[in-house]
Amino acid sequence: MADVSKKRKTAEEMAKEQKEISISEFFEKNKHLLGFDNPTKALLMCAKEAVDNALDACEEAGIMPDIAVKVRQMKDENYRITIQDNGPGIVKENIGKVFGKLLYGSKFHKLKQSRGQQGIGISACVLYSQLTTGSNTRVWAKTESDKKMHYYELQIDTRKNEPTILKEETMDPTFENGVKIEMDVSGRYRKWVEDYLKETSIANPFAKISYTAPDGTKTTFPRSVNELPKPPREMKPHPYGTEFGILQRMLAATASRTLSAFLVNEFSSIGAQSSKEMCKVSKLDPNLKPSQLDRDQIEKLINAMQKVKVQRPPTDCLSPIGKDSLEKSLKKEFPTAEFIISRSRDPEVYRGFPFQIEIGIVYGGDLKEDTIQVMRVANRVPLLYQAGACATTEAVKETDWKRYGLNQQTNSIPTGKMVLVVHMASVWVPFVSESKEAIAPYPDIVKEMKLAIQDAGRELSRFLSGKRRAGEQKRRILIFERYSTEVAEALAEITGKNKNDLEKKLKSFIGDRVKVNEAGEVEGIEGAKETAPKEASDKDLKKIEKQATLAEKKPAKREQSKK
Amino acid sequence: MADVSKKRKTAEEMAKEQKEISISEFFEKNKHLLGFDNPTKALLMCAKEAVDNALDACEEAGIMPDIAVKVRQMKDENYRITIQDNGPGIVKENIGKVFGKLLYGSKFHKLKQSRGQQGIGISACVLYSQLTTGSNTRVWAKTESDKKMHYYELQIDTRKNEPTILKEETMDPTFENGVKIEMDVSGRYRKWVEDYLKETSIANPFAKISYTAPDGTKTTFPRSVNELPKPPREMKPHPYGTEFGILQRMLAATASRTLSAFLVNEFSSIGAQSSKEMCKVSKLDPNLKPSQLDRDQIEKLINAMQKVKVQRPPTDCLSPIGKDSLEKSLKKEFPTAEFIISRSRDPEVYRGFPFQIEIGIVYGGDLKEDTIQVMRVANRVPLLYQAGACATTEAVKETDWKRYGLNQQTNSIPTGKMVLVVHMASVWVPFVSESKEAIAPYPDIVKEMKLAIQDAGRELSRFLSGKRRAGEQKRRILIFERYSTEVAEALAEITGKNKNDLEKKLKSFIGDRVKVNEAGEVEGIEGAKETAPKEASDKDLKKIEKQATLAEKKPAKREQSKK
Repeated sequence: MADVSKKRKTAEEMAKEQKEISISEFFEKNKHLLGFDNPTKALLMCAKEAVDNALDACEEAGIMPDIAVKVRQMKDENYRITIQDNGPGIVKENIGKVFGKLLYGSKFHKLKQSRGQQGIGISACVLYSQLTTGSNTRVWAKTESDKKMHYYELQIDTRKNEPTILKEETMDPTFENGVKIEMDVSGRYRKWVEDYLKETSIANPFAKISYTAPDGTKTTFPRSVNELPKPPREMKPHPYGTEFGILQRMLAATASRTLSAFLVNEFSSIGAQSSKEMCKVSKLDPNLKPSQLDRDQIEKLINAMQKVKVQRPPTDCLSPIGKDSLEKSLKKEFPTAEFIISRSRDPEVYRGFPFQIEIGIVYGGDLKEDTIQVMRVANRVPLLYQAGACATTEAVKETDWKRYGLNQQTNSIPTGKMVLVVHMASVWVPFVSESKEAIAPYPDIVKEMKLAIQDAGRELSRFLSGKRRAGEQKRRILIFERYSTEVAEALAEITGKNKNDLEKKLKSFIGDRVKVNEAGEVEGIEGAKETAPKEASDKDLKKIEKQATLAEKKPAKREQSKK
Repeated sequence: MADVSKKRKTAEEMAKEQKEISISEFFEKNKHLLGFDNPTKALLMCAKEAVDNALDACEEAGIMPDIAVKVRQMKDENYRITIQDNGPGIVKENIGKVFGKLLYGSKFHKLKQSRGQQGIGISACVLYSQLTTGSNTRVWAKTESDKKMHYYELQIDTRKNEPTILKEETMDPTFENGVKIEMDVSGRYRKWVEDYLKETSIANPFAKISYTAPDGTKTTFPRSVNELPKPPREMKPHPYGTEFGILQRMLAATASRTLSAFLVNEFSSIGAQSSKEMCKVSKLDPNLKPSQLDRDQIEKLINAMQKVKVQRPPTDCLSPIGKDSLEKSLKKEFPTAEFIISRSRDPEVYRGFPFQIEIGIVYGGDLKEDTIQVMRVANRVPLLYQAGACATTEAVKETDWKRYGLNQQTNSIPTGKMVLVVHMASVWVPFVSESKEAIAPYPDIVKEMKLAIQDAGRELSRFLSGKRRAGEQKRRILIFERYSTEVAEALAEITGKNKNDLEKKLKSFIGDRVKVNEAGEVEGIEGAKETAPKEASDKDLKKIEKQATLAEKKPAKREQSKK
């Protein structure tokens, strides 16, 4: 069968070359998978991973976050990034692994919302720093119970994926509790770091973030709410979306003695009743010892677990931004906006994982009349790259925005003076790559995002048609004002009162409400700006409108000739 | 500074929860990163990874590959995939790790072209199989020197990322040498498996692949060349694109005693002369001990290494398909095509890695008049997903196809009856994800692809205008034939020869060359089909053309009235 005449290498020779590849080596060579594919992005990634970790740690410890970010240019394309937080700190023994080992952390195995979920982020930055500048990452850590502060200089031994500690010192603390990390990286500076921090501040209204740019400019993003969100609770797996191999492993590992107890103890949303029904549907004895189920039985059980109706997963594992907090945040960041609204949907489930979609809309003010700005956020972390691959983008494109008063080409991002925030909160966000830049467009997620957008879109539509109506009213008032002399004349004739008095009153009445600029254009109607116009001006203006309609009819010809 | 009033968790409590995450656990939860994001794709991935491995092993051992692929439906969405090759086999001791450990292999650390490069592919399939069906993967392996065949049943212990051997048997061999692997997976069957094998056959003309589909249909993709490509050789790193951390590590690990020797010994394309110059440019003593360079010196050295002009990397580390082999392959797969051409560019370099672009164009025949089909290939492996993210797609879109005679909307894939093959051969293909579905669009790569496309495009353009010209010629001949009676009359008058004889001769002369169908349309001109028309018909037709032009002038009116 085989033509082995031109032998090159035997199986034995090949075997000698086969060896283990460490995850650090893998990502060193594939750093683009972690988001380090260009100098601008790399610099941003370093700031981002450190800030995300700081926020997670503060929230978990119950501390209102106070984070300082500083970027300095050392030379050409060489930057020093320093991030300090007031979190709980890290115990001495774990500092090495937290920063010097990829795939290490506390969040991967938990079904509970957090920013980090992979145990890769910050150590990837350390890896990138040593790869591009050869320098050690410096870490200062201080916990509340430890009287001393610990200083570490470290790198990653990529062959072993283990930290190499190059310096270790114990010193008098310069801060009460928290972590300070400093990295030198090859990068390029763009103001995206500020954009990221601004968006982070919006999604985390309880955080105070201060930032020093390479040119020395300082920016502070203050808190807009003074309370931490409720801490999310860990959940057990939900029966829907359970996979064969996982169930098999759970059955082998459980302490429960019977199948029915196993189902109740190891899953969320399964009670005695549904457990019983699952056994019935799968035709399995509820008293079976879990570890003794064979493959056919496991398959039957899985099928039954998908069929029997159970409650949705618990939602206290989620930590949404919240309707009010999101609105406060947006008002703080967009003080000139004409319209701000937010929506927080009820939690839903994809593949057994609970998730929740939140939407924020900011309209008008300083915003440019352009393609709307979509602010994508996952577990309170802004996503800045790979928008094209993201579920949010798909949801925005598939929404019919013309219904809500925006311009839109088929299957495109609409245009308008608008910012749209789409937040997905979940115990597990399905990112399209390790760099966590885009949410995989699973149908269940896209669908829920679209429903959320539609919900907020209807409010936007009401505001915009109110705005249009107000615009028409303004035009009518303007016409009314232009012909107030004629109206006064007519009124004087009808009522027999003094024409000049009438005209004065009319003008002052209009003048109180309408501001006209030099070009003669109406710039605003009093009371129509702060809230949605429909509420503000309707009552007052209705009266004027009636009279205006009257006036409008009369001098129709003159108006036309004027134009 | 910190508000620790609402204490939730201390650093010490958090430390207890921090732990290592195994790469298997990571990818089990993130299986979409490996391409297992839907049942159809998952099934294809399993066939693909096994075939790619088989081809790599055969080529490395110098064996003409003979690969059998079989897919059987076990029930509903449950399939059994079996792949058998005639490669060198795998030694008993390595079977477990090759199939049961992620990040294990021989190719990751080598700068040499191969299909696999990560050591993830096949073990990811094993992982997916056990996750979705709970079943063991079965492996039969036989090496030439071992008299026995070894049978293994295994799974991956995801917590440790190590193989669990569930059965191990030694038996009488059923084949001489090679590997047979069988996996049960949850999947959905589409004919993409055949598409993949067909494209694989095109990119590997020396391989014989036979395939049995779930419905029992058998397809064989025979060899179109009977020789293996020259084996690629391993190269040393090229000075261009060297990164700080890597250089630092190399300096620490080298056996060379001086800096100048280090440069010559550890890099490709650096000779005594360029080594000397690099030392001079960086102002470093050539006799420095490599391990003693400090960070500043390393930085100077890196800069000098980018500046000093050295030769391009060696190209014997690459194994292109080759212009002739690619053409043979395409002729075999597209027997009805009117035009087939291929181009193999000179190797180029991105970030220090040599790479080479090859292009194939198939035009006409059975192909549909539609958006052209772009066949993307990386290191002889067809890429079937994520076309939108791929460098090839970018290169195709950015090419001005109108120049070459195709229809194209701005920045889109052109339309036409065409298949375009784009092959990138490299010692390291920068894929956008672990699933290796798209080549990262680095500017150097896209640029080279565009140049290659333009090169082939010009040939296409010549063919298409030849085709148009031939079309015109055909029309002229047809006219000539229609009026052959009149021409014969005229000739008889001039020459005094018999009119009927002349007409007969004329008609037989045309009839030999032109086939006219029932509708009176010219269907073909002899000799004009196999090769490009411009070469085929020009000589013969020129004579006729001259006469035809003559004839055309005369009955101009009648021709018009006829139409």
